[in-house]
Amino acid sequence: MKILVINPNTTASMTDHIGKAARGAASPGTEITAVNPTHGPVSIEGYFDEAMSLAGLLDTIRRNPDCDAVVIACFDDTGLDAARCLTDRPVIGIGEAAYHFASMISNKFSVVTTLARSVPALEHNLARYGLDARCAKVRSSEVAVLELEQPGSNARQKISAEIGTAIAEDRAEAIVLGCAGMASLAADLAQEHGLPVLDGVTCAVKLAEAMAGLNMRTSRLGGYAPPPPAKLKSIFPGE
Amino acid sequence: MKILVINPNTTASMTDHIGKAARGAASPGTEITAVNPTHGPVSIEGYFDEAMSLAGLLDTIRRNPDCDAVVIACFDDTGLDAARCLTDRPVIGIGEAAYHFASMISNKFSVVTTLARSVPALEHNLARYGLDARCAKVRSSEVAVLELEQPGSNARQKISAEIGTAIAEDRAEAIVLGCAGMASLAADLAQEHGLPVLDGVTCAVKLAEAMAGLNMRTSRLGGYAPPPPAKLKSIFPGE
Amino acid sequence: MKILVINPNTTASMTDHIGKAARGAASPGTEITAVNPTHGPVSIEGYFDEAMSLAGLLDTIRRNPDCDAVVIACFDDTGLDAARCLTDRPVIGIGEAAYHFASMISNKFSVVTTLARSVPALEHNLARYGLDARCAKVRSSEVAVLELEQPGSNARQKISAEIGTAIAEDRAEAIVLGCAGMASLAADLAQEHGLPVLDGVTCAVKLAEAMAGLNMRTSRLGGYAPPPPAKLKSIFPGE
Amino acid sequence: MKILVINPNTTASMTDHIGKAARGAASPGTEITAVNPTHGPVSIEGYFDEAMSLAGLLDTIRRNPDCDAVVIACFDDTGLDAARCLTDRPVIGIGEAAYHFASMISNKFSVVTTLARSVPALEHNLARYGLDARCAKVRSSEVAVLELEQPGSNARQKISAEIGTAIAEDRAEAIVLGCAGMASLAADLAQEHGLPVLDGVTCAVKLAEAMAGLNMRTSRLGGYAPPPPAKLKSIFPGE
Amino acid sequence: MKILVINPNTTASMTDHIGKAARGAASPGTEITAVNPTHGPVSIEGYFDEAMSLAGLLDTIRRNPDCDAVVIACFDDTGLDAARCLTDRPVIGIGEAAYHFASMISNKFSVVTTLARSVPALEHNLARYGLDARCAKVRSSEVAVLELEQPGSNARQKISAEIGTAIAEDRAEAIVLGCAGMASLAADLAQEHGLPVLDGVTCAVKLAEAMAGLNMRTSRLGGYAPPPPAKLKSIFPGE
Amino acid sequence: MKILVINPNTTASMTDHIGKAARGAASPGTEITAVNPTHGPVSIEGYFDEAMSLAGLLDTIRRNPDCDAVVIACFDDTGLDAARCLTDRPVIGIGEAAYHFASMISNKFSVVTTLARSVPALEHNLARYGLDARCAKVRSSEVAVLELEQPGSNARQKISAEIGTAIAEDRAEAIVLGCAGMASLAADLAQEHGLPVLDGVTCAVKLAEAMAGLNMRTSRLGGYAPPPPAKLKSIFPGE
Repeated sequence: MKILVINPNTTASMTDHIGKAARGAASPGTEITAVNPTHGPVSIEGYFDEAMSLAGLLDTIRRNPDCDAVVIACFDDTGLDAARCLTDRPVIGIGEAAYHFASMISNKFSVVTTLARSVPALEHNLARYGLDARCAKVRSSEVAVLELEQPGSNARQKISAEIGTAIAEDRAEAIVLGCAGMASLAADLAQEHGLPVLDGVTCAVKLAEAMAGLNMRTSRLGGYAPPPPAKLKSIFPGE
Repeated sequence: MKILVINPNTTASMTDHIGKAARGAASPGTEITAVNPTHGPVSIEGYFDEAMSLAGLLDTIRRNPDCDAVVIACFDDTGLDAARCLTDRPVIGIGEAAYHFASMISNKFSVVTTLARSVPALEHNLARYGLDARCAKVRSSEVAVLELEQPGSNARQKISAEIGTAIAEDRAEAIVLGCAGMASLAADLAQEHGLPVLDGVTCAVKLAEAMAGLNMRTSRLGGYAPPPPAKLKSIFPGE
Repeated sequence: MKILVINPNTTASMTDHIGKAARGAASPGTEITAVNPTHGPVSIEGYFDEAMSLAGLLDTIRRNPDCDAVVIACFDDTGLDAARCLTDRPVIGIGEAAYHFASMISNKFSVVTTLARSVPALEHNLARYGLDARCAKVRSSEVAVLELEQPGSNARQKISAEIGTAIAEDRAEAIVLGCAGMASLAADLAQEHGLPVLDGVTCAVKLAEAMAGLNMRTSRLGGYAPPPPAKLKSIFPGE
Repeated sequence: MKILVINPNTTASMTDHIGKAARGAASPGTEITAVNPTHGPVSIEGYFDEAMSLAGLLDTIRRNPDCDAVVIACFDDTGLDAARCLTDRPVIGIGEAAYHFASMISNKFSVVTTLARSVPALEHNLARYGLDARCAKVRSSEVAVLELEQPGSNARQKISAEIGTAIAEDRAEAIVLGCAGMASLAADLAQEHGLPVLDGVTCAVKLAEAMAGLNMRTSRLGGYAPPPPAKLKSIFPGE
Repeated sequence: MKILVINPNTTASMTDHIGKAARGAASPGTEITAVNPTHGPVSIEGYFDEAMSLAGLLDTIRRNPDCDAVVIACFDDTGLDAARCLTDRPVIGIGEAAYHFASMISNKFSVVTTLARSVPALEHNLARYGLDARCAKVRSSEVAVLELEQPGSNARQKISAEIGTAIAEDRAEAIVLGCAGMASLAADLAQEHGLPVLDGVTCAVKLAEAMAGLNMRTSRLGGYAPPPPAKLKSIFPGE
Repeated sequence: MKILVINPNTTASMTDHIGKAARGAASPGTEITAVNPTHGPVSIEGYFDEAMSLAGLLDTIRRNPDCDAVVIACFDDTGLDAARCLTDRPVIGIGEAAYHFASMISNKFSVVTTLARSVPALEHNLARYGLDARCAKVRSSEVAVLELEQPGSNARQKISAEIGTAIAEDRAEAIVLGCAGMASLAADLAQEHGLPVLDGVTCAVKLAEAMAGLNMRTSRLGGYAPPPPAKLKSIFPGE
């Protein structure tokens, strides 16, 4: 089974980090291809970055048709709906994956993400998936995405402190880490705080395996109907 | 990996049917144990049957501690919350599993279940999971659960007709089959109607594998906190 | 008029307490029968206890057909839907009763219940009844159910403190006491805090009188349709 | 016990009809005073009539302080919130009363009211009470309020036909009659259609008895705080 | 273009204040007529005042037919629905206007209003308009409406302090001032706190110009259908 | 006052059509600049086209800083949130504008759009704006966007037929036309069907004038915080 894991920003070190987390979660026999677009924002923090990464993200999907499922490895589930029009293979966002799992092992979870500017986009996603009722609060740790890549930063401490507050104030029974770059912290923070801490990358890889294993396809009726070939050709003229 | 699949009604032929569907979906290396309680209702059609099957269901979980995940193979997700208190292994309902997957491959899905009396319980579940906004309609085919086990019944036709109506009237982009006993019909109906048709048993087995593969545990904080040992002993005095 | 008041746990002293509160609220001419099952949990604190009390609860209803209405005297409204399938007499949960009344004498109310583990079940009930929009918050006092039966406990103080917080922080205009065992505290706490404090037992008895007085019956169509006699016989073979 | 039943329109024959229904439902020992304002609309059909009846309605409450509970006998629950500021006795709207009861004897109910122009006001009330999730549909029979008072009209037939449609199309398990003037039809229509048919007047009288019997008072905190005496005097200068 | 701006309370100095704010916002060529009823409450603080101002408000609309749009200049949008039945010109409430604009320049806003007793009415309006999901919190500054008219009061300070809390605790991205009497404070408070602060009077005047400029009319179908002439005549007999 | 009206697709004839409609609605003194990106999809019909038009749309905003407000003239409000990060001038989507106005002149409206594949995106927008409760139904006329530009097509008839159905089946009190290309049809269809028919282009121009006239700015706190200059430079390197 082949899973295409796309980091929609252009920071290769983060793609490596994500690829490692994905491979760590994958079953034997699953091949992970971790890629990122060559142009677009270096990190995705809010609506503008999200929008500017879409062309690169969708082009990456189009150029990698040989896969059984696609994982979008940015916590705001960048371009999820558009990607589902472009391919009938299951497309899973890492935010979405973590929320769904969290809702099956807790009555209520909180999200700890990076910057305040990213919070509304996550809240909108939760509302769209219907899982806002299960999310106590989306919290920002005020750790920037690329800070997570810097060895000396106190990112882990800030995130841990925010988890503590979520347990005390939100009555959170589980925590979802709100950035692909936090994947390596999950196990340790779960240990420290005594509750499930979910990382979206590993959740999405397992969901992708599950859906590809069932040979699932995205519906071609209604909102995910594929764009007509003529339109595709006009947009990607190199075809 | 060991997955305990519990049919909460007492009809052994249905347990066989469910076990077969579960094994068909399981990865190599996954061992499926399909069981049912020895007392309780012969089929679960609505609130009363659900309630009367709970003691048997929970007792079955307690007697089978050696597993990595539990699947509750009744479409109304009988006793899901109570089961999550009793064991920290992931517990997945087949209704829940199908709804979550359907919401990731379609914008809107409809459910086709057995009898009208079962519809409100399913609607309540959907609302609780937050996925009611993604469900266009819960439809009953007026096929009783045990009719599905009878070779000569016209169950398949009634279900197929209801799927046709769901596509035409509900703008459904995918269909969820609303009974464990319909597992064997899914592939064929998908073919016939040209859209994804999801069966909960296979969905739940794959979700169980995914969650167990990530070594997930149900939260022990809040609503799923385990009952104190003294209480357990008073309820199951044989311990 | 005869009202069957069922304490679904097996603690007889609590049944006495509940029976006394019920009789105190009943009109002249109303006969209260307060009973409890002989097996099941000694107290109901969360999903697991709820599930394990259902068989006893429903059996108790079946054995007491000679009544005009049934009150389920546990604040999580244990088995309400299943009970409505079993008898066409009005069945009223004490949680439900208190919420409905509170929504008619205040814009917003808060609930003060026993343990944190019980909170999610109450939140789910409120959402199901549609009254979650009227409930500011479900608060736990961390008083266990059976502590309420112990003369020397500081249960009253903890509950009173939580009411004070609800008024200050939730802008609660009324308080609902979230346990049948708190019935005797309501009048005094209302006096102390200067706002309505509702106890579910008395509310449910009055609702039961009202509904029985109107000769109301639970609908036999759809979700509350009675189980077929053959199924009933297979479940309660002694019939 | 004294219950003040106010028909907020000025049609005395309708007040008589309502008074009769109220007395039919009242317990021995309950005294019903059925009144209507002397100025304002002759019938209440929609937002404008509602608004223009408020001054008369509130003045009627002020002039009748000697009562244990107040029933507002118009199905759109005219002035309910304002009335709750003016008196601390329980104030119950007949729409509200019927919705609450219907939600306790059915999973879903439909409303059959008079004219299409009244539907949005009822839908708004249902949303405010939180009971919209339990209401399948608000249907208009296109019978004007005063037509209900005319012996030769075919009002009953139109209403009965609409009930038939509600059962078939809405999967309604109970019906709420959406006008005080329909009180006398309920028993007969329930018989005809084989499901509970609720009339708001009788429901509200029983709720009023229940609440007064518990000595309940509307909260004086927050939104129902009484207007200061100086303001009352400036508005009702005759005081 | 002529816009009728109605202050539904009877305090003329407040009408002047509102008229000044309205004229300050109006385009050249727009004529503002600011009026108030001659009887009714001197200020509108909660449900009772609202109800008692309706007859005067609607009578004022009826007596001023020569206008292109109507603004109801009380923040609880007094009588909005009834007014829309009485005239087909656009009718805009100042609360409504500010909420709609705030939802287009921020992800989340908080409201700072006068007294706690007014909060539930505003919350109900927000829910009805569907904009409650965009409102973080309705806060009361405990400044009475008429205090805003008194030069020496510390009203501005209390309101400013509440805005500070809203930014810190609610993550509000914009503030809506919850009283017509606060119109003159908006620009200054926006400057002080560095975020948009919206005043309903100016918002409503601009919306009124926009709608009248498009020649919009309120729908005459359904809930805003005009009352029949006979009913109007019976209510306003002087016609 | 200068309003930048962006057609996010690349079809110049449609930009002309939109520009004409915008100028027809603008006040004297308002200058309309109607533009479209030079690359991207020729029409926007669903999620994929939306995503692929974003880079061109945002680049167009960046290249036209000299304006007082921005209108996004595609009915799915393409890139609304991202645009609000890029400029602090008010940004208004034509879908959004029409929904807000429709909710102020009707209790319930229906949308008539182009193709079924566009419906889910519109439903998601409505839910996000909170206006889904006011929208009875989003209907597709099965008229493709570019068909609207073809003189001989029977587009108008199909749209008119769908409006008829919306009135009869949805109890719609107003209609919103769901495509910028339908702007010229609104007045005529309103006349034909006797209810308000709103076109988003004209609504958005008037809202833009209103907001710019109040000197409103989009909040710079939280979700609409502007991207840091370094990130902007990396994305638009030509700066």
